[in-house]
Amino acid sequence: MEKILNKIIDNNRYLIKEGAVADYIPALLKANPNHIGICVMDVDGNIYKAGDYTEKFTIQSISKVMSLMLALIDNGEDQVFKKIDYEPTEEPFNTLFKLDFPHTIKPSNPMINSGAIVTTSLIKGEGEERFNRLLTLIRTVTENPNISYNEEVYLSEKETGNKNRAMAYLMKSRGFIEGDVEDILDTYFKQCSIEVTAVDIARIGLFIANRCKLSKGDRICDNKTASILTAIMATCGMYNFSGEYASTVGIPSKSGVGGGILGTIPYKMGIGVFSPALDQYGNSIAGYGIMADLSKELNLNIF
Amino acid sequence: MEKILNKIIDNNRYLIKEGAVADYIPALLKANPNHIGICVMDVDGNIYKAGDYTEKFTIQSISKVMSLMLALIDNGEDQVFKKIDYEPTEEPFNTLFKLDFPHTIKPSNPMINSGAIVTTSLIKGEGEERFNRLLTLIRTVTENPNISYNEEVYLSEKETGNKNRAMAYLMKSRGFIEGDVEDILDTYFKQCSIEVTAVDIARIGLFIANRCKLSKGDRICDNKTASILTAIMATCGMYNFSGEYASTVGIPSKSGVGGGILGTIPYKMGIGVFSPALDQYGNSIAGYGIMADLSKELNLNIF
Amino acid sequence: MEKILNKIIDNNRYLIKEGAVADYIPALLKANPNHIGICVMDVDGNIYKAGDYTEKFTIQSISKVMSLMLALIDNGEDQVFKKIDYEPTEEPFNTLFKLDFPHTIKPSNPMINSGAIVTTSLIKGEGEERFNRLLTLIRTVTENPNISYNEEVYLSEKETGNKNRAMAYLMKSRGFIEGDVEDILDTYFKQCSIEVTAVDIARIGLFIANRCKLSKGDRICDNKTASILTAIMATCGMYNFSGEYASTVGIPSKSGVGGGILGTIPYKMGIGVFSPALDQYGNSIAGYGIMADLSKELNLNIF
Amino acid sequence: MEKILNKIIDNNRYLIKEGAVADYIPALLKANPNHIGICVMDVDGNIYKAGDYTEKFTIQSISKVMSLMLALIDNGEDQVFKKIDYEPTEEPFNTLFKLDFPHTIKPSNPMINSGAIVTTSLIKGEGEERFNRLLTLIRTVTENPNISYNEEVYLSEKETGNKNRAMAYLMKSRGFIEGDVEDILDTYFKQCSIEVTAVDIARIGLFIANRCKLSKGDRICDNKTASILTAIMATCGMYNFSGEYASTVGIPSKSGVGGGILGTIPYKMGIGVFSPALDQYGNSIAGYGIMADLSKELNLNIF
Repeated sequence: MEKILNKIIDNNRYLIKEGAVADYIPALLKANPNHIGICVMDVDGNIYKAGDYTEKFTIQSISKVMSLMLALIDNGEDQVFKKIDYEPTEEPFNTLFKLDFPHTIKPSNPMINSGAIVTTSLIKGEGEERFNRLLTLIRTVTENPNISYNEEVYLSEKETGNKNRAMAYLMKSRGFIEGDVEDILDTYFKQCSIEVTAVDIARIGLFIANRCKLSKGDRICDNKTASILTAIMATCGMYNFSGEYASTVGIPSKSGVGGGILGTIPYKMGIGVFSPALDQYGNSIAGYGIMADLSKELNLNIF
Repeated sequence: MEKILNKIIDNNRYLIKEGAVADYIPALLKANPNHIGICVMDVDGNIYKAGDYTEKFTIQSISKVMSLMLALIDNGEDQVFKKIDYEPTEEPFNTLFKLDFPHTIKPSNPMINSGAIVTTSLIKGEGEERFNRLLTLIRTVTENPNISYNEEVYLSEKETGNKNRAMAYLMKSRGFIEGDVEDILDTYFKQCSIEVTAVDIARIGLFIANRCKLSKGDRICDNKTASILTAIMATCGMYNFSGEYASTVGIPSKSGVGGGILGTIPYKMGIGVFSPALDQYGNSIAGYGIMADLSKELNLNIF
Repeated sequence: MEKILNKIIDNNRYLIKEGAVADYIPALLKANPNHIGICVMDVDGNIYKAGDYTEKFTIQSISKVMSLMLALIDNGEDQVFKKIDYEPTEEPFNTLFKLDFPHTIKPSNPMINSGAIVTTSLIKGEGEERFNRLLTLIRTVTENPNISYNEEVYLSEKETGNKNRAMAYLMKSRGFIEGDVEDILDTYFKQCSIEVTAVDIARIGLFIANRCKLSKGDRICDNKTASILTAIMATCGMYNFSGEYASTVGIPSKSGVGGGILGTIPYKMGIGVFSPALDQYGNSIAGYGIMADLSKELNLNIF
Repeated sequence: MEKILNKIIDNNRYLIKEGAVADYIPALLKANPNHIGICVMDVDGNIYKAGDYTEKFTIQSISKVMSLMLALIDNGEDQVFKKIDYEPTEEPFNTLFKLDFPHTIKPSNPMINSGAIVTTSLIKGEGEERFNRLLTLIRTVTENPNISYNEEVYLSEKETGNKNRAMAYLMKSRGFIEGDVEDILDTYFKQCSIEVTAVDIARIGLFIANRCKLSKGDRICDNKTASILTAIMATCGMYNFSGEYASTVGIPSKSGVGGGILGTIPYKMGIGVFSPALDQYGNSIAGYGIMADLSKELNLNIF
């Protein structure tokens, strides 16, 4: 198996040159574009790793899956989806314009930035508490108590996150979010700056595949939550490439501009991939190639 | 099993009153809103039926799955998706406005009307040939040689289909479609008017679940085409309710405003549901309830 | 005075090379880009001409002023502006997307194509009668009984006018226009193909400046209609360059992609300019330069 | 003359009941809706007043004319209109969505909020200096050294101005504005809170009508600036009612949600009207009626 993983990595390494590391958050420019790592965990407890799986990277939008999980735990499905729709959009992750349409009543889904900012606002807690509760959940699910956030990336996001700030103030003015906008943004920027490895990401994927059970069998949330998270990843997880990804890979996934991709195959497997060079949609370019090959090689396409 | 199906029908019959039969095509107003029928076929050859499964209804948007199948057979994936994107949209099935944006280069996906009109334009053939080839494919896949179209509904669609006409001329002016617009629309209106039953629809679902194999084992198209069709149904098949449907039902499906819903569960099952009262999205309102119950009862959620 | 006009023509001749004759209607490509003509008529009966003022060109969008005049005569201000708004738009003349927004109830103004198509639909008459009544009005106002339309341009517009066709069908589907769409479009394409000279155009301008009185004093419509036409030309007449034109020229004007510009200065003067090379907005590029110079030289800016 | 003004006020008083004072800035809710005042000044030095012309109100969007004047003085026409377009829009004053379109490069015009925020950013000065320079200009032009701003309204705007904040951050993220966003917004909120009377407003109108000359003949800016300001008021000054206002009133004007309307008739007259109940566009409802009557009664329509 690890031989297969290494071969797939090698086959996709050339893609790095066709992508570029994220440049809209200055601190992300420091990433080493040559890194490629992968980790696969199945429900039988097998763990396979290859490449730079020990390298840390910021979780970025993959955190949206975890904040949605926590918002669902805190509020229940009905309350969450009163405030955020479930619908995929063909607009980019940082789209804003429909939020200004008179007939819009909530952001399209929790995987684009506007929806994710609402998700974060729904996590219970005051001030630092929101972030701390989310970090605790991520540590629990990854079974890695050492996970923390990268201060430099956080400050860089905070300083340059004007599009996110615009969304948040627009949603505030329309009554889509409650609470202090800068507080919510602060949590949001911090959650994006959490550092993980491909192994941590694979474990999140396995946890969801296992219907929200930890490796020792403890249940954090119910089967229905696992289905919702998986469905939303499958329909919205790869930004405005989600449809093409579903048709060509067929693994419910969530990407982040840090270069990570989280994959989950219900009742079967969790996958973590990492390679920081991105394509035009903001997805890891080699990561996509790896996922596509993995899907074919191991027959993982759920469709 | 048929007992379960009957119970599910009974449990969802009350929903009929909360919906309404389609009114934008005058001839559809004649549908009997009280009809509810279902048919389930599994890969082992079992067939279960309940309710008004012998009633005919027009296939409407479910035909988009079949025209996409034929366009893929005729042109291959690359050529088709040069002309139509794979991306779900949060806009309604008859959305048009993004087609006028300077940066738009193709319709969002083949399940909304604009994309489906392009799909139809990609079917090879002159004049009547396009439609006849599609009808032949549908007869083959449903294994029902008696399928034909409803002349009254076709003429009604043709007369009142001004929004579809607007889309087609707009796409023509932007170079998104080639060929004679009225010819393409004529085929499109005719394909929507094809009459089927819940049994026919279930057989389409089974065919896709069986990776495009007929009951006697003949292959019409390849496994990859089955995956693409299933993925597109899962992400775009229920109009701008597709995301919520994925999260709450989890069965790759395609609805039509005639009241039908086609479901397919890879390697497992095909489902046909029929009930003509629609919700605000244009999906069968009792049909959605039935699919949701069926998914829970038989544990069919793929996510 | 004619010396001034000749000097202004010479000063702006270089602009021709920076523009291009309209290419989206194939027959317009035959225009000679080197033509420049001008005619100025004041309320005291003086007529000044220079350059190619005897050359014929198709009236194109300048006809929108005349069709609006006739629609106002036929229906009154209230009825017309129930169906078309008065508001300038920053979108191009052939914009369509807002017509698809749920909250839109009419096109923005009568100077963009969508609004002009509605205007034409409001002219009373069956079949050919609409067009014939408009042609008669134009002959009356220009005091030129020889005016007619160019069959080749008309057929070319009809064949290639798919964007206009899309707008018309979209507006039909939303109830913004009544009547037969192809009939209305036929009149619209024909009215755009009417051939005029700079002298004819200047006389239209003088007629409006004279509060809708012919040279012998006969009144065709009232002072209020003259004010409305002038106000709409001032705010919407130069497509999505109207604002910049108002700030830099200050003469209420209407352009056409045939290369003509109609100017009117209330109680003072009518101006006709012709030069077929267009800028990016669809306005005559040398025509704009000529109008700007004329405004400065003769102190015509009304603002 | 004052008899005419009183009659016009009386004729339009009933309109107050059909409007409502602005509610989106809490402090504006305290305005007395029954106030109506008017002041007319002509170029011969005559001043006519009627009604509540001594009542103070906040200048709100009328300040956009003055900030544009200062930005033009500071930067020249070319530099200002590199950053803001001249084009009227049919969208409301607080529209935002087009700022997110990929092809948008600047806000539509300086009379909508987004454009006005850019205008303010172009005023030269650090910190308080921007605002102080603008206040000084307003005092000079109104020839009223006592003008100041209302602290309560300013703080209320600052606290609740989330839509404006969203626009500013969006424009910052796209490079449409330079400098510190909160600083610019602070100046913007403060400039909107400047308190004036109908007399002050009339004097601004007269100043522009007089081609930017003070009553004693000193020139503050040139004739071309006067034309630009007048043209922009005529095409964009009454929000997305500007077109209908031009057709029905024909006086270049700028309204504010404080209830004021500034009118200017080139080489002729300045007008200040005040009545705080607003219509759906955010324009003074009785103010519009008064302007329409005044235009007819005194034959002031420039079109």
